[in-house]
Parts: sequence; C-alpha cells; structure tokens
Amino acid sequence: MSLNKEVSLNLNIRGLTQSATIAINDRSKLLHQQGGTVYRLGLGQSPFPVPIPVVEALQLYAHEKDYLPATGLPALREAVAGFHRKKDGIEARPQDVLIGPGSKELMFLLQLVYYGELIVPTPCWVSYIPQADILGRKVSLIHTRIEDRWRMTAELLERHCAGEEDDYRPRLLVLNYPGNPEGCTYSATELKDIAEVARKYKVLLLSDEIYGQLHHTGQHISVARYYPEGTIISSGLSKWCGAGGWRLGTFTFSPTLDWLLKSMAAVASETFTSVSSPIQYAAVSAFRGDIRIERYLWHARRILAALGIECGDMLRTAGIQVHPAEGAFYLFPCFAPLAETLASRGITTGRELCERLLVETGVAILPGEVFGRSANELTARLAYVDFDGAKALSASETIPLDQPLPKDFTSLWCFNVIKAIQLLIDWVKQ
Amino acid sequence: MSLNKEVSLNLNIRGLTQSATIAINDRSKLLHQQGGTVYRLGLGQSPFPVPIPVVEALQLYAHEKDYLPATGLPALREAVAGFHRKKDGIEARPQDVLIGPGSKELMFLLQLVYYGELIVPTPCWVSYIPQADILGRKVSLIHTRIEDRWRMTAELLERHCAGEEDDYRPRLLVLNYPGNPEGCTYSATELKDIAEVARKYKVLLLSDEIYGQLHHTGQHISVARYYPEGTIISSGLSKWCGAGGWRLGTFTFSPTLDWLLKSMAAVASETFTSVSSPIQYAAVSAFRGDIRIERYLWHARRILAALGIECGDMLRTAGIQVHPAEGAFYLFPCFAPLAETLASRGITTGRELCERLLVETGVAILPGEVFGRSANELTARLAYVDFDGAKALSASETIPLDQPLPKDFTSLWCFNVIKAIQLLIDWVKQ
Repeated sequence: MSLNKEVSLNLNIRGLTQSATIAINDRSKLLHQQGGTVYRLGLGQSPFPVPIPVVEALQLYAHEKDYLPATGLPALREAVAGFHRKKDGIEARPQDVLIGPGSKELMFLLQLVYYGELIVPTPCWVSYIPQADILGRKVSLIHTRIEDRWRMTAELLERHCAGEEDDYRPRLLVLNYPGNPEGCTYSATELKDIAEVARKYKVLLLSDEIYGQLHHTGQHISVARYYPEGTIISSGLSKWCGAGGWRLGTFTFSPTLDWLLKSMAAVASETFTSVSSPIQYAAVSAFRGDIRIERYLWHARRILAALGIECGDMLRTAGIQVHPAEGAFYLFPCFAPLAETLASRGITTGRELCERLLVETGVAILPGEVFGRSANELTARLAYVDFDGAKALSASETIPLDQPLPKDFTSLWCFNVIKAIQLLIDWVKQ
Repeated sequence: MSLNKEVSLNLNIRGLTQSATIAINDRSKLLHQQGGTVYRLGLGQSPFPVPIPVVEALQLYAHEKDYLPATGLPALREAVAGFHRKKDGIEARPQDVLIGPGSKELMFLLQLVYYGELIVPTPCWVSYIPQADILGRKVSLIHTRIEDRWRMTAELLERHCAGEEDDYRPRLLVLNYPGNPEGCTYSATELKDIAEVARKYKVLLLSDEIYGQLHHTGQHISVARYYPEGTIISSGLSKWCGAGGWRLGTFTFSPTLDWLLKSMAAVASETFTSVSSPIQYAAVSAFRGDIRIERYLWHARRILAALGIECGDMLRTAGIQVHPAEGAFYLFPCFAPLAETLASRGITTGRELCERLLVETGVAILPGEVFGRSANELTARLAYVDFDGAKALSASETIPLDQPLPKDFTSLWCFNVIKAIQLLIDWVKQ
C-alpha cells in the first residue's frame, strides 16, 4: 500500500508553491533552453560578483569546521554592529546582532516567535505574506499609492492603527527601503513621521534595509535613528555584497528588544543551529569593509544609478508611469495610462501583460499582483540586472569616480537591459 | 516608553532555552577560562577535520554566488542519490533528494509540513522534542530498555500503535542509528521487524542515519531496504565528514513521498531559500567520494572503534553498565548498580551526578534526562571526542589498515578521553 494515498499535510502549507520570483527564473531558463532569447528582468539577483577580498577570505577559512554559537560568530557580530554604527549612525552593540542563513530565514523566525499581527505596505517583497500564511498569523495589507511614490505614510499607519478596536494589539510593521519592488526610498522627514506613529501605538518595526548600501548616492538613512527602541534592522550579504547564494543575513536589535533576540536564538539552536562557519568567517571582512570594498560599492552604485535613470526615462517617453530610481535595482512601472490600447489587445491585468510580453518579446518581468497589489492593476516589477556585473565594474573602474559615466556606458555594458526596455516600449506602442 | 514591558511571544516558545548540548559546551568553555581543566565529553562534535579534498573544493568554488534551487544543486542531489545507492543499496534518484542547512533544519521543516504525531524512542537526540513543542505537535515517547541495548523494538511499536483508539492516525517515527546518545545500532532482523509494524500502521519513518558512515566496522544497514515506501533517510556532512559547522544536511525520500518533498521545498523557498552555494559545490566532492575520502573514513572508524571499546571496558570494570560501542562516538552508561554508594554522597539523579562530576573532576558529560529519560534515572551520555582528530588520523595513517591499532594508541593520541574515563571511575569509586 502506498503512503501516497494518505497525504497528511499542515493545512497552512497545502497548495503553497515556490515563490513567484523563483518561478519566473525557472520559466526564463526553460524558454532559453528552447532556443528563445530571454531578457531576465524577473529575478532580483545582484549582477555584481562577490568582492575579491571577501572571496579570498572564504578560501582562507575554508577549513573552519566547528559549530558556531546560534547567535553568530562573535567577530562577525562585532563587525556587523560596527557596520551599522559607521554606516547608519546608530548605537549598535555586538550583543544586539543575530546572524542567520539569509534575512528571509530570520524574518520567518521573527514571525514564528513574535505573537502579533503583521502589517505590510504594498507593493511589497514576495515572502512576507507567505511566511505569515505558513504560520497562520494575521496579516493586514496597507495599499500605498503611486502618487505617494508607493510610500507608506504616517497617515496611512495612523488610520490603520486607530481604525481597529484594539489600539495596542501587538503589531509588526515591515518597511523595506530602498524598496523591492519599486526602487524608491524614504526621506528623513517621512521616516520621522512614521516613527512617531509607530511609537504612539508601540508598533514593532522590521526595517528591511537589505538594499541600504545600494542607495544610488550612498545616502541611506535608517528609521532606527528615529525609533531606536522599537526597530530591528534587517541586512545581509545578498544585495550590496552580491552574495545572494551565500545565504547570510543579519538582524540588529534595540537593546530593549533583547527578549526577541534571545527567543529567536533559542529557536535557531533547534532549527538551523548556526550559519555555515566558513561563510561567517568570510563575512567578517565584508562587514568590516576596506577601501577595496568601498570602491566596489561606489562603482556598483554609479552603474545602477545611471541604468535606473535611463530605464525610467525611456519608459516615461512611452507614456508609462514610473518613479525615478533611488536605490536597489528595481522599477515598478504602471501601465494604466495605456490601459485602453492594452485592453484593445485583450490585456486587462498585470498578469496578462507580463505573460504576453514574455511570449511576444522574451522580456521577463513580474506582475504587481505578486507584490501584493490587486490583480487588475496594470503594474509590474522590472529588475534591471540582466548584465555582466563583473565586466561593467571593470569598465567603470577605468573612469574616475568623480566623473559621470559616459552616455554610451549602459548601451555598451548593460545592453540586454536597454534592449529589453526598448522591446517593451515598442511592444506597448504596437 | 520601552517595548520591553510589552513582551509578546508565541506561547510555544516562551521559556525555550538553547539546547542542552550547546549549554554544556558554553559551561565547559567558561570553566576552562577560569583556569580549570575541563574534559569535554559533553558536545557531540566530530574530532576529525574536514577531509582535504573537500576543503580544497570549497576553496575552488568560493566565488559561486548564485541562488541555487530550493531543493539543492542538481549535481549535489545526484551525488547524494549515488551515495545512498552505493552505500545503502537502495534505489535513490536525484529528484528524491532535498538539501538543507543541516539535517536539523530539514527535520523541523518536516514536522512543520507533516500533520501527524511524532513518536520518539528514548534515549533520543536532544532536538526532536523541542521542535515538536515549538510547532505545537503531539509527541509520544517510547522508553526503550537497557536490556534491549536501548533499542526500539517491533513489540514496543506495535503496542503503541495498537493501544490507541485511532489506529491509522498520521504518525512519524524517528529512528536514529548508529545512535546518539547510546552508540548502538540495529541488526537487519531488528530493522525488518520494525519495518513490518510500520507498514502495518502506515507509520512514516524518519531514519536519522547521520552516523551511518561512522558504523565502526562500516556495516551500516538502512531501514529503507525493508520499508522503502515509507522511509526518509536523513544524512549530512556533519558527522562522517567532520563538517558540523558547515551546515549541510540531506533528506532522501521514497518516490511515493514526493508530496512531502515538494511541500518542504515550497516552505524552504520561503525560509532559508537554498543552502549556501559554495558549501553545496564543495559537498559534491564529499558525497561522490574518492579513495582519499574512503581512507579517511576507514581510519576514523578504526580510531573510534578502538576508543569506544576501551572506554566501555574501563567503565564496566568499575561496575558501570554500558553496551559495547557499535558506531558514532557516544556511550550511554548507567550508574544504577552504584546507586547506593552514590546516594550516600547525596546523588540520586543523573543531573546531580553530572553536576558533581563536572565540579569535582572537570569531566563534562550530560544526564540521561536531556535525552528524554526520567530525571531520577542514573544515566548519562559520554561523547568520546576530546582529542585532536587530525593528529590521531596522521598517527593512524602510519599503521596499515589491515592491522589493529597498537595497544597504546588511544593513550598516546586520545589521552584526554582516557584520562577523563579514569577520573570518572576513580570518582565513582570514592
């Protein structure tokens, strides 16, 4: 008798599939194998290689085999705390830092441990909501507006909190900036205003700053400066250090939130145990930083800034609404101004738009629905990462950092992205 | 206002502390720092280094940065399937393998995904039960007996399943062999008998074979040979490959259990995403194996076998009950025959025994209570790993594999372990 007939699954997990960003990657690979040209603006992976000093550190520590503490290698906790002190001007201590196998895993542990409602402004990154679903937690979406640059506002938060009968229910608000999927960030004033409302309602903030170091002009500001007692900063190696596949994320807590850190570490010791030792040793050099890593970052930012601005400009000339890129490597265009033309071609949802675009042009992007927006909204995320980051960095290094990149830089070194945008524009204009 | 006053934690997690094995390690370190000599027979970490070809592979692939599929690197899934085909004589295919950041994390995902009762024979490894507690799952302990070599028996399983009103409730039975904490394994007949009962009641088996390759004479047999349709084999790099800190575990499923693999992979994609790329690339060479890795394994087994036998013999001469070591690096001595003498010194529980032993001699071992036994049972786990595995391997390599190790090998190369056992014996005889 086969056990197959006796499927017994947690109801929260039945029907759960792999995340949409991973699915588009698999689909793109398949189309590519079938001989089609695919422009991979779907998966949001850094195009840049891991900086050489960090790779060399991994080679140096490849023999490290000991189990490390569940909270992380002490030298790495120190380096991460120093990183946030230096970069974000906050008072972080080594004992406030928790290391995990990716910030996604740490977010899951946080949701498992913290007994509260999850508040997610949309458009949002793809995994916050499925994690809450797996754990059976209540989720409240707050839909932001294009005219607010897709920003969560203090007013929206106030209205949400005040609108519920139970003003002081435990709440966890996720803020992600520079943001996936929209590439925008917050001003100091916007953050201060949100901090004030969060403090009023004692909302715990999960400040997802994984793209912090990819603010295009290096001017990232953390909300922890305005609401230190209630903020957890989430960061990691995946984006600014180009090491998504290495799986190393960090949470930095306020000292008043040590009860959360301790509970998460206890669960960590019964689940992933600790993060891979050689990876942690190598990460120390990344978070400590040095002139080579800083230079890498400045070149990466200069390339992303130029490319983001150019893509946005191109899209706008075609009548597509999109905000100027401020950080990370995403744009979140809205095709609503072209709704009539698109409808005449049978396209009325973001999903239909992306599906037809992929089939008819080979350009892979993801519909806004995947990021928590309504299905009939004509939005999509575009990740401008389909280029060889190593080559682009080498080319950028030949141009002094105090000069702008030449006009033809993107078409020379990021040609697939420019080509994809052109194809997209031609396609909508049909 | 401090959020500290507003602690809001999942009740399943409140009061959860770090696992006991990690705690004894921290305690030993502290005593050591205070100037005491500590014999570390507490934490169960392989004393041997990661084999050189595997470390070299990690150096070679240190630059790998891409996110890998949630199920694992295809070449690694192929290597793991081949490993089980070759070592265990079962029909494993690459698509039956799931890679995780440690088998502990995979076990947690399994318990999260599978909606059933967890059955754990005791003495048992420390994390199965806390994982079930975190997830709010029902746990049934089946206490095995010293006269059965602490083995789960078909009779015990039959009695448990038949004794419940609901014969076919979904159940997950953990079998761990060679076993932590007792160092014993199962014969083919014992496994066949258990398999028969498991099949009758459709019990899912989680066969924790992480120490399979550390069977002291290399004759490990998997229960999957007798109950392929209902078995998941758990393995990884931590024990046989000395790479506990690398965090790489594997689950190998029956094809009929693909629904479990798929659900676990979906949750993986929303939590740890995938295992660190460089680690996965390096693990390919470990699971593929070669003559250097096989030789490493034979030397490691020869050392552990000699040391395990000697420790057991020494303990028995002091009147302590203990079974001959068959695999892994643990003994689970029972001090019941000395209960009167110990009671006269105020020791009536395993915890008191371990506490007094540590304070009075510096020998760190863990009480049976930690492994699911009753608090007043005078049992403890002893991990005979406090020696320099690299030096011991080098010494063993000078002696042909077809010859036994000389009598003085252990006192020369594993002197801390022998010294600790002698101290323990002298202490109980006081």
